Amino acid sequence: MNKILVANRGEIALRVMRTCREMGIKTVAIFSEADRNAPFVQFADQSVCIGPPPSNESYLKINEIIDLAKELNVDGIHPGYGFLSENPEFVNAVEKAGLTFIGPSAEAMKIMGSKLAAKAAVKKYDIPLVPGTDEAVDDIDEAKKIAGEIGFPILIKASAGGGGKGMRIVEEENEFESQLKMAVSEAESSFGDGSVFIERYVKGPRHIEIQVLADKHGNYRHLFERECSIQRRHQKVIEEAPSAVLTDAKREEMGQCAIDVAKSCDYVGAGTVEFLYDANDNFYFLEMNTRLQVEHPVTELITGVDLVREQINIARGEKVSFEQDDLSIHGHALEARVYAEDPMNNFLPDIGKLLTYRSPEGPGIRVDDGFVEGMDIPIYYDPMISKLSVHARTRDEAIDRLVRAIDEYRISGVTTTMEFCKYAVQHEAFRSGNFDTHFVKEHWNPEEFEQQSDPAIEKVAAIFGTRAAIENRRKSTVTAENDNPSVSKWKTNRLRK
Amino acid sequence: MNKILVANRGEIALRVMRTCREMGIKTVAIFSEADRNAPFVQFADQSVCIGPPPSNESYLKINEIIDLAKELNVDGIHPGYGFLSENPEFVNAVEKAGLTFIGPSAEAMKIMGSKLAAKAAVKKYDIPLVPGTDEAVDDIDEAKKIAGEIGFPILIKASAGGGGKGMRIVEEENEFESQLKMAVSEAESSFGDGSVFIERYVKGPRHIEIQVLADKHGNYRHLFERECSIQRRHQKVIEEAPSAVLTDAKREEMGQCAIDVAKSCDYVGAGTVEFLYDANDNFYFLEMNTRLQVEHPVTELITGVDLVREQINIARGEKVSFEQDDLSIHGHALEARVYAEDPMNNFLPDIGKLLTYRSPEGPGIRVDDGFVEGMDIPIYYDPMISKLSVHARTRDEAIDRLVRAIDEYRISGVTTTMEFCKYAVQHEAFRSGNFDTHFVKEHWNPEEFEQQSDPAIEKVAAIFGTRAAIENRRKSTVTAENDNPSVSKWKTNRLRK
Repeated sequence: MNKILVANRGEIALRVMRTCREMGIKTVAIFSEADRNAPFVQFADQSVCIGPPPSNESYLKINEIIDLAKELNVDGIHPGYGFLSENPEFVNAVEKAGLTFIGPSAEAMKIMGSKLAAKAAVKKYDIPLVPGTDEAVDDIDEAKKIAGEIGFPILIKASAGGGGKGMRIVEEENEFESQLKMAVSEAESSFGDGSVFIERYVKGPRHIEIQVLADKHGNYRHLFERECSIQRRHQKVIEEAPSAVLTDAKREEMGQCAIDVAKSCDYVGAGTVEFLYDANDNFYFLEMNTRLQVEHPVTELITGVDLVREQINIARGEKVSFEQDDLSIHGHALEARVYAEDPMNNFLPDIGKLLTYRSPEGPGIRVDDGFVEGMDIPIYYDPMISKLSVHARTRDEAIDRLVRAIDEYRISGVTTTMEFCKYAVQHEAFRSGNFDTHFVKEHWNPEEFEQQSDPAIEKVAAIFGTRAAIENRRKSTVTAENDNPSVSKWKTNRLRK
Repeated sequence: MNKILVANRGEIALRVMRTCREMGIKTVAIFSEADRNAPFVQFADQSVCIGPPPSNESYLKINEIIDLAKELNVDGIHPGYGFLSENPEFVNAVEKAGLTFIGPSAEAMKIMGSKLAAKAAVKKYDIPLVPGTDEAVDDIDEAKKIAGEIGFPILIKASAGGGGKGMRIVEEENEFESQLKMAVSEAESSFGDGSVFIERYVKGPRHIEIQVLADKHGNYRHLFERECSIQRRHQKVIEEAPSAVLTDAKREEMGQCAIDVAKSCDYVGAGTVEFLYDANDNFYFLEMNTRLQVEHPVTELITGVDLVREQINIARGEKVSFEQDDLSIHGHALEARVYAEDPMNNFLPDIGKLLTYRSPEGPGIRVDDGFVEGMDIPIYYDPMISKLSVHARTRDEAIDRLVRAIDEYRISGVTTTMEFCKYAVQHEAFRSGNFDTHFVKEHWNPEEFEQQSDPAIEKVAAIFGTRAAIENRRKSTVTAENDNPSVSKWKTNRLRK
């Protein structure tokens, strides 16, 4: 493979191109008019504007992307995550054009893209599933009977949903019928597919996923787990590897289970098998993501494996570059996603211009970002500014390092998730490992957070309030206790806006 | 330990403070008037200007530093490297003031600070030394006799010299007497100490050093080797861990030997035992550096150990945090030092204002730097701008990653060692591992480098010559083969000056 087109944007486009360059492979960036000044556009060997935002006018235009790839003599296409990365039609179109899709087959995508097809596929393996229906429910009485057998609370899930969309929890039997009807009607209007299935609602669940790699020669590897239980709006915001709760035995069991899931669809490439993990150390297969994940850096940090390099090598027919026994877990890694969102306002996007933007450096820090100072964060896309990953020998040291690194960020112009991330990893529940996907609901109270914060905040904010004040402080030769940036920065950003 | 004063500047001050912050320890920066705007000054909890440059008016003022530390209720002092870091008087003064010096005892420093004392100390252990005199030579005839026994070429070394200073190679017996006289007289005028010793000159030597840690409880650990053979003007510029030539058996042998050297002076803290390594896989003890080394990040990358954290814990009486058997080598790390020097002009400093400064990011990259864009590089100090360290699974991947990362730097205003580093690691001699400390002399020919470089350079330089041109390129939506930044950047910097 000599030239790869990255059909994506932002940090993930840059991240893929970095490995391409290390491998001596030329890169082509496609970009929308909103991304003209983005670093990935400048990083690529060739960059082509393919249309205006929103995405269906540019990043989702399958035919235009393939025509361009052919015109520029590209031989491989990397889809990143999101956009076309899990679209079987795109895979088919790429392959029909004689190009290599860097990812799994369209067939594997189709199977794992449907909860019901996925359940059917893994049936031949001993994969633990949350007790529930195997197929779409269409008979109300039958559904009620099954629900009674499973026991309440019950979760109704749209077959075509995902990421928290199309889910409905039913606590009591007498609510079941009306909730089911509403779920079907919602799924029809949201996804064009009214099929739903019902299952036991797992209380206190943790989200633990296994990274897998599979090549075209029938070799399957797992790269241990990532725990992604800290979520807001059903979306991950802090990830770590390894999980604080997995024993070696459980890790091996889940790893083998993930490999079986990959085998069930003849998977090729990098993929992630997601599990629910309950308080009794039971795990249940949830779904398989047939692409590189946002949070893949934590796995790279603890294993040393470059997942994009493996993806490319696998796509061009090479074997996975290591044996299962070559792998071991080195230290602990955490990732915090820096979104332009306001944690004090229900994590709603808070986009604007990055008036100040400086990222942390030094020991154990990895930054993947897609912006430079002065850029606008486009309203059209996911408002992730940066991914901060840290690596240290122990979980406690990794937490301390993450906090230090968050304090080193200098961001103004937008409000970010950073201060929430800092709060979360320092929370006793996180430190102790005793948390689940309801962390935000249970432990994040913006008003309380504001009151609990140091009363010095207002003073600090006043001191830091203007650039002139900062300059003055900087120039002072008088010994003065510097303000704690951990307290001041976020507040400062809010005031400066 | 609650508050540490870092008696240093630049990247190493910042690096030490980062770990302090992660450990919950407050920091005090001292700075000269020339460093007022440096990041380490802003990072510290307290920052105090202690005088103007040069160093003997500020960073070397022992009494002022200690008075300040007492005034600010500091309880520990970290000396970094250089400046006072290997000054036994400073250690004594710190301890006399009731403060903790984060480093070895004054006695250990004294022993290892003198080549003769060091040789005498290690005598009780089985430490291989380069064949030569054990004590200072003062009798010409005796010296000639010894030289004849050792065999030519012979190296005459000033006892108080170091880092290539005060060394003299004598190829032929008939030159010996006159060279010896000149060496003594030079040593007297340069170091105030005319004592010299003579030893066999090791041909084709590699510089391989072992990182050690020792605590106050008699525990000694080695953290494997760093190879630092790529040097210009007898100063390291590229370092790596592990070395391309060491077998596991040799590594273990040298590690144990380094521990013995540390034991010979009752060493406490982090130290480095340097060896010459010849083409026949013999190694010879050279000297021990009684401080943290510039190149310590490569060891941190392959072991996961935070050396500064260990230093601080050891200084406050804790044990080294791991057993020898807990350690293993993970992957391969390289460090390239980015100096404001002109490789085309004998690596002479080329200081000025950092008009543009952006450092690389992404997988496997660690940057330790002491500057931000717009800062002047002071003429008073070592002109190191940044340390770029990379980590990957294999040596080849680490080299590719280093090259990619060098290409990501955006530096203008000064000429740097980056393009030399890129040339060096891509050279067949480096790739194959077949190199020694004479790499620059043997393989670096600036004129040839200029001629060999792609003829497209001139065109590229012309395109990149102005910011306006870059802006235009950036804004262009036309598909165009981007220029190879690996070729263009350095040239660009040179043109822009």
